[in-house]
Amino acid sequence: MSIYEKLESLNITLPDVTPPVAAFLPFLRSGNFIFLSGHIAKMAGKPWVGRLGENMTTAQGKEAARAVAIDLLGTLHAAVEDLNRISHITKLMVLVNSTSEFAEQHLVANGASELLWEVFGEKGAHVRAAFGAAQIPFGSCVEIDLIAEVAD
Amino acid sequence: MSIYEKLESLNITLPDVTPPVAAFLPFLRSGNFIFLSGHIAKMAGKPWVGRLGENMTTAQGKEAARAVAIDLLGTLHAAVEDLNRISHITKLMVLVNSTSEFAEQHLVANGASELLWEVFGEKGAHVRAAFGAAQIPFGSCVEIDLIAEVAD
Amino acid sequence: MSIYEKLESLNITLPDVTPPVAAFLPFLRSGNFIFLSGHIAKMAGKPWVGRLGENMTTAQGKEAARAVAIDLLGTLHAAVEDLNRISHITKLMVLVNSTSEFAEQHLVANGASELLWEVFGEKGAHVRAAFGAAQIPFGSCVEIDLIAEVAD
Repeated sequence: MSIYEKLESLNITLPDVTPPVAAFLPFLRSGNFIFLSGHIAKMAGKPWVGRLGENMTTAQGKEAARAVAIDLLGTLHAAVEDLNRISHITKLMVLVNSTSEFAEQHLVANGASELLWEVFGEKGAHVRAAFGAAQIPFGSCVEIDLIAEVAD
Repeated sequence: MSIYEKLESLNITLPDVTPPVAAFLPFLRSGNFIFLSGHIAKMAGKPWVGRLGENMTTAQGKEAARAVAIDLLGTLHAAVEDLNRISHITKLMVLVNSTSEFAEQHLVANGASELLWEVFGEKGAHVRAAFGAAQIPFGSCVEIDLIAEVAD
Repeated sequence: MSIYEKLESLNITLPDVTPPVAAFLPFLRSGNFIFLSGHIAKMAGKPWVGRLGENMTTAQGKEAARAVAIDLLGTLHAAVEDLNRISHITKLMVLVNSTSEFAEQHLVANGASELLWEVFGEKGAHVRAAFGAAQIPFGSCVEIDLIAEVAD
């Protein structure tokens, strides 16, 4: 099953890439690495505002992380044109907008990690760092950046 | 126009590299990648202390991020000896010392992103992640690390 | 002296790798790079809970960062089978669970940086970014991720 058939079976439609509103790029290829900029969680196209420990549950945060992962896949598709050419999802940095009391950033991050595993199988198994940020651009609840590898 | 002529036209003088005060390096080359340590914002050679949302405006934060980018260029110059050999600015991580209310980290980060674009043109267009840190060493308002690529 | 003799001279016993409790990997090799996931500080096998500026001293934080570095070496050993094959410790990201007042993340991070220098000598000299996180998974006081290079 191709990655696109897999996405369809999960009822996932990839979004178009939102061009950053500033002097930076959504993605950059360097050798076999593809670097993706930090993507913030969005709901219905607008920043998904919230803070874990204050006005969002862990389950909602996990859902937001999954949504970010789908946006990252949209960008990755734009970067490589064919997601089947991705040889590995290498690394995620998962920032969770957190109060000083909320300590389940790893469970929030699983929303992204599990989606990548569902879509790419073993090629989707990555390393990651997840932690609490004091705040995220636009007040979004989750931000994730990603490094992937593409086959020649 | 060479990178140094460009810097002169912008009235930018590159600083000397400040050797870290501990067991780590200001830069490291690995293959064609140059990794730079996190550089904190400084003013007149001392940590530029402040927190966005508390005692600094977004415009001041953006100015601080621009100052960090100039320091990063100084370190990059020390790393490669000739900035014209930089084939790409690859990635920035921009940490903004933020209250839990301040959500314009992206605008602060633009101070660095725009400078790199001014100096390097298309070679300066990078990916980045910007977010709010609970605190930064020495109480500095901004910290940025950078990955660049050098041509063989 | 081999790396393992060095570790023995420092009375350091490498831990076994704790498999992550989710859909991500403790380490991943990509070309000559080894990427390690964020490792949280542990004491006696459990999360080393605490926050700098609140209920831990800088010295205790530094000790926790050293403990994380030892766990990272355990994972690196599992990744490459022979630590003598590591050609360089490339980069650390050091997250310190911090109040908004604590600004000595660099001194905490030295606990990891100095250990790597002790163990690997010049091959252990790395770049790094250290900063304050709002919170860390499980309430741990320090989290560190690492990139290393392995010789062919």
